[in-house]
Amino acid sequence: MRAVEIIAKKRDGLPLTPEEIAFFVQGYARGDIPDYQAAAWLMAVYLRGMTEEEIIALTMAMVHSGEVIDLSALGAPVVDKHSTGGVGDKTTLVVAPLVAAVGLPVAKMSGRGLGFSGGTLDKLESIPGMRVSLSLEEFLETVRRTGIVVASQTAHLVPADGKLYALRDVTATVESIPLIASSVMSKKIAGGASAIVLDVKVGRGAFMADLASARELARLMMRIGQGVGRRVVAVLSDMNQPLGLAVGNALEVAEAIETLRGGGPHDLREHCLAVASEMAVLGGAANDVPEARQALEQALASGAALERFRAWIAGQGGDPRVADDPTLLPQAPYRLVVPAPREGYLAALDAQEIGLTAVMLGAGRARKEDAIDPRVGIALMHKMGEDIPRGEPLAVIHAADEASAQMAAQRVLAACQWAEAPVQAPPLIYDILRGV
Amino acid sequence: MRAVEIIAKKRDGLPLTPEEIAFFVQGYARGDIPDYQAAAWLMAVYLRGMTEEEIIALTMAMVHSGEVIDLSALGAPVVDKHSTGGVGDKTTLVVAPLVAAVGLPVAKMSGRGLGFSGGTLDKLESIPGMRVSLSLEEFLETVRRTGIVVASQTAHLVPADGKLYALRDVTATVESIPLIASSVMSKKIAGGASAIVLDVKVGRGAFMADLASARELARLMMRIGQGVGRRVVAVLSDMNQPLGLAVGNALEVAEAIETLRGGGPHDLREHCLAVASEMAVLGGAANDVPEARQALEQALASGAALERFRAWIAGQGGDPRVADDPTLLPQAPYRLVVPAPREGYLAALDAQEIGLTAVMLGAGRARKEDAIDPRVGIALMHKMGEDIPRGEPLAVIHAADEASAQMAAQRVLAACQWAEAPVQAPPLIYDILRGV
Repeated sequence: MRAVEIIAKKRDGLPLTPEEIAFFVQGYARGDIPDYQAAAWLMAVYLRGMTEEEIIALTMAMVHSGEVIDLSALGAPVVDKHSTGGVGDKTTLVVAPLVAAVGLPVAKMSGRGLGFSGGTLDKLESIPGMRVSLSLEEFLETVRRTGIVVASQTAHLVPADGKLYALRDVTATVESIPLIASSVMSKKIAGGASAIVLDVKVGRGAFMADLASARELARLMMRIGQGVGRRVVAVLSDMNQPLGLAVGNALEVAEAIETLRGGGPHDLREHCLAVASEMAVLGGAANDVPEARQALEQALASGAALERFRAWIAGQGGDPRVADDPTLLPQAPYRLVVPAPREGYLAALDAQEIGLTAVMLGAGRARKEDAIDPRVGIALMHKMGEDIPRGEPLAVIHAADEASAQMAAQRVLAACQWAEAPVQAPPLIYDILRGV
Repeated sequence: MRAVEIIAKKRDGLPLTPEEIAFFVQGYARGDIPDYQAAAWLMAVYLRGMTEEEIIALTMAMVHSGEVIDLSALGAPVVDKHSTGGVGDKTTLVVAPLVAAVGLPVAKMSGRGLGFSGGTLDKLESIPGMRVSLSLEEFLETVRRTGIVVASQTAHLVPADGKLYALRDVTATVESIPLIASSVMSKKIAGGASAIVLDVKVGRGAFMADLASARELARLMMRIGQGVGRRVVAVLSDMNQPLGLAVGNALEVAEAIETLRGGGPHDLREHCLAVASEMAVLGGAANDVPEARQALEQALASGAALERFRAWIAGQGGDPRVADDPTLLPQAPYRLVVPAPREGYLAALDAQEIGLTAVMLGAGRARKEDAIDPRVGIALMHKMGEDIPRGEPLAVIHAADEASAQMAAQRVLAACQWAEAPVQAPPLIYDILRGV
């Protein structure tokens, strides 16, 4: 087999065999196939597409490019969740202790933020002392001890994906459904999940701007998972406006804690309960969604979920007192209230623009090597559809200094659209796919 | 301007501006843009194509990636020729002294063989003493002194093309009409040609297997040339069977000399006269093709062309006595006559298979770094359409040893097809395009 012949075959629109895909992907991960051949192949895949069989073969070739984690010793099936990325998406922070409280182990590898999307690891690191870079031994020991661990992906897990992703980023081949689907699913499969809940975001602040493409991506990832014996459910949820009200690392942790205490924004609570219910059913902690939901609501009301959160944070070296005193989280030195410039119904609250404003404040990364300021962000006061009087606080900017706060305030106002007549807010969840 | 945005634009099928093309191609030639980005871009160009405006911009961006040779001091327009490559194609060896004999200067940069196609430089180097690697100063001084020079392309001429070609070879992006056309034309334009005769080969032993694609490539190259003020004529000629009878470096030089002496295979003589006539008209040495042809036939008959050949060879350090004694050329130690296995009309003599057989004997390169054996090759005795008695010599194999000669004999036989009834040989020239 020769790399150039595999490139030519894909270039001509012919399907590759599983052997050809494994030869190419694993050869690239090992360094036997150079970047320039992988780049030509990625562009051919981008433009010619792949069959479902090819995508499954690609996923498994990536899985076998590195180590595969065996979580069977935990004694219960591990249900993973994956969000395609959004603004204000702190779902994992709430859902991990919530499903742990109904008896499911959580052993999750997560990512950092890039561009306008935040990352769970960055959020967790705003908790004093919290460690997210664990060795595989620490990872397994932590989940055995506390029932929950969320850490960064080890270098040995799906090395082909890390290498291919970096190359896609500089060769204009990121936005390819076969490449996205295989990248996500290979990490979930190698991470040892028995079942997976996919949280596929749709809208202005999501990779998939329309419901049809989101559904296509979701169905493809479900078929990949099912093709290799994993049960997969996909939640198609809105990302036209941010999820919840807080955008920024420490602010989002505080909002997640509020939600675990039984409060928090309605949309965030509902979204977390929906995702956690699917996880509970897949993991066998409940027979059906209504039963799961009842148990999860009980775990919130009783404080059991919050207790699991404390144990989780402590288990990874973090200060568990943040669960009771959010002022222990890093605080921004400068705050600026943004008043509503007019009376009206909030008709749009552009998630991407809010996300980019948070990046500008220092909450995210424009480039991989940028540092994060955990203190800064935007605390929204309202959501789409609400009728807001003129002068009413619309958001509070948490900033490192006055200049960046002023700029952020202007951008938040620019992200809003107003209507005279009542407007319908987008639904929180468009659909839940439980089988394909 | 960012390389990744230019890749994305081409990926999406949008035309690039001349500035974007120049940024990309010259950035790549300088080493500012890495191989992997160029590879993704080449695949996007291969699959999305380019408009005529883009191809002209690409050609000129490649021309300006290096030095441009100024031949205006020679006092006469320099008419270059380019063959798209074939088997037994020793046309340049005949045509260069032929047009010089009617008053045109010849200052030509040529290439080496790769795969089943031979290269003029390899053929010339079979002449004892002949030097084809000249500095630009030697190149110009030689043409001024003797009226003819044929040498390898200097490293400073179209460096972007050399670098892109090497990358195309390993990324399955060679067979792209925009990339081929701009590669050929950039070298001709940078080489200082005022006018160009393109010899576009069609058939089994050519890059273009059918007349329609060959015509498309020819027209595109003509439009590129005309777009930048060069007059271009394209000869569409047959390459289903080898040109002439000799295939292999020293054998082809001997056949070219025979042709310059007024003999040689009929098809080779006719082909060389057709190409040279177009060159003579473009260069102003004749008013029209019939007048050119008469002058060129006269140059063959009078010995003027052969005299020019001697001066050319001597001018580049070669032994001019080969023009009178071909036994001074390297001789293969082993010869094997291949008799016709049956009586019949020769219905096919697969040029590609004959070319590959010559490579196997050592006359060509499977890889760039392979060495050439100038002595070996195949001397055919017959052409397509001829009625051949059983046992009649079909070819003589010139080999380094008996084993390779025996293998070659088998392959030559396999390259032949036979018919009971008379068959029509393919025409030598399909068309001559003088304007688009």
